[in-house]
Amino acid sequence: MSINPYADAATEKDTHVLQRTARELAGKFHGNFTPEMVERYVFESYATLGRTARIRTYLATTAGRFAADRLRALAQSMGRLESDRPQVLFVCVQNAGRSQIAAALLSKVSGGAVEVRSAGSLPAGEIHPLAAEVLAERGIELADAFPKPLTDDVVRAADYVITMGCGDTCPIYPGKEYVDWDVADPQHAALEEARAILADIEARVVALWEHIQGNAGPHADGADALR
Amino acid sequence: MSINPYADAATEKDTHVLQRTARELAGKFHGNFTPEMVERYVFESYATLGRTARIRTYLATTAGRFAADRLRALAQSMGRLESDRPQVLFVCVQNAGRSQIAAALLSKVSGGAVEVRSAGSLPAGEIHPLAAEVLAERGIELADAFPKPLTDDVVRAADYVITMGCGDTCPIYPGKEYVDWDVADPQHAALEEARAILADIEARVVALWEHIQGNAGPHADGADALR
Repeated sequence: MSINPYADAATEKDTHVLQRTARELAGKFHGNFTPEMVERYVFESYATLGRTARIRTYLATTAGRFAADRLRALAQSMGRLESDRPQVLFVCVQNAGRSQIAAALLSKVSGGAVEVRSAGSLPAGEIHPLAAEVLAERGIELADAFPKPLTDDVVRAADYVITMGCGDTCPIYPGKEYVDWDVADPQHAALEEARAILADIEARVVALWEHIQGNAGPHADGADALR
Repeated sequence: MSINPYADAATEKDTHVLQRTARELAGKFHGNFTPEMVERYVFESYATLGRTARIRTYLATTAGRFAADRLRALAQSMGRLESDRPQVLFVCVQNAGRSQIAAALLSKVSGGAVEVRSAGSLPAGEIHPLAAEVLAERGIELADAFPKPLTDDVVRAADYVITMGCGDTCPIYPGKEYVDWDVADPQHAALEEARAILADIEARVVALWEHIQGNAGPHADGADALR
């Protein structure tokens, strides 16, 4: 008899959810990617998130969304899917605080005129509660956000890569702007500090948005003002 | 002018190495996987290792080997590449100590009659020096080993998955044996303790190897003895 201490119903159920998600995404990306490649993305996204995610109840669903966004990013970077908007990627260590705040603020400030992604070099198990709280004070809900690892596809898709407190962990592609922001980490901050960090990020996000609007492409002069 | 604080020569060089590696592997896996999928594996393997690897000098080379092994595992699991030997996967948290020791010992004990892989749920930046040391005392060199994350492909390929101290982080596939070993972690151990841990692992590895030899397939009875 086979020993399988992990064969609880939840995980078997996850496998079925992932297979169904893979079929759906294969249909959505038909003509862009093979069903095989889509399935790889779905299952690897699950394995990757599963290494760090604290709450496992919705892991298969979250992994499906992560895979969908990664495939979209990849298709965009390959010119197979039109990216009508500038693509911005925020990266911090945990993708639980700073990069989540920056992504949420840029989405709001730009009114959706920018496609925003975020990732972490060592993703945390869940969103930092204070990050969610100070954003909620501004009327922004992080309901669907989750910490996710930095992957190659989202770097490829980005026109602007903004890092906060993490080193280089991805290959360098031409045609992008790489900027590092020296922003404090809210991980062990009190509420007041977290608000100050949000204000700091917000000022930078507003300047970034003005810079993006002023750019014909992502390579105009004047980016020094963003540091 | 574009701002690119990461565009040092090393990283640009890495990108070229990865592209060359992708072309080579695309040739090697011609008929199994598309060049596009092979390239994805190479660059994602680099991004994944880059998030945790401490020594970056050989990162592109290491990522190439990681990608090659993952593609091989995937091709085996799909029946596109014959796996003439039993496939064993050891998983611990860091893939720096226990799973590396177990993998090295099973390779030696089985005389290469088993294809052995190892992975970690949260891979460390480098192999634990004591793990390398106690293995070296047995005449086993870990020269080419490196900590790597648990990926879906290597789980798929495995006939036997042995975990040590980490939870479930991958989908469950039928036709495998999943076993958990309660082995102490050498991370903060002294040399004597590390030797005792190696001895503990060795006894289990020998029993596992006997069990594998006694199995027609991976589903024979008697696996309880391995716990």
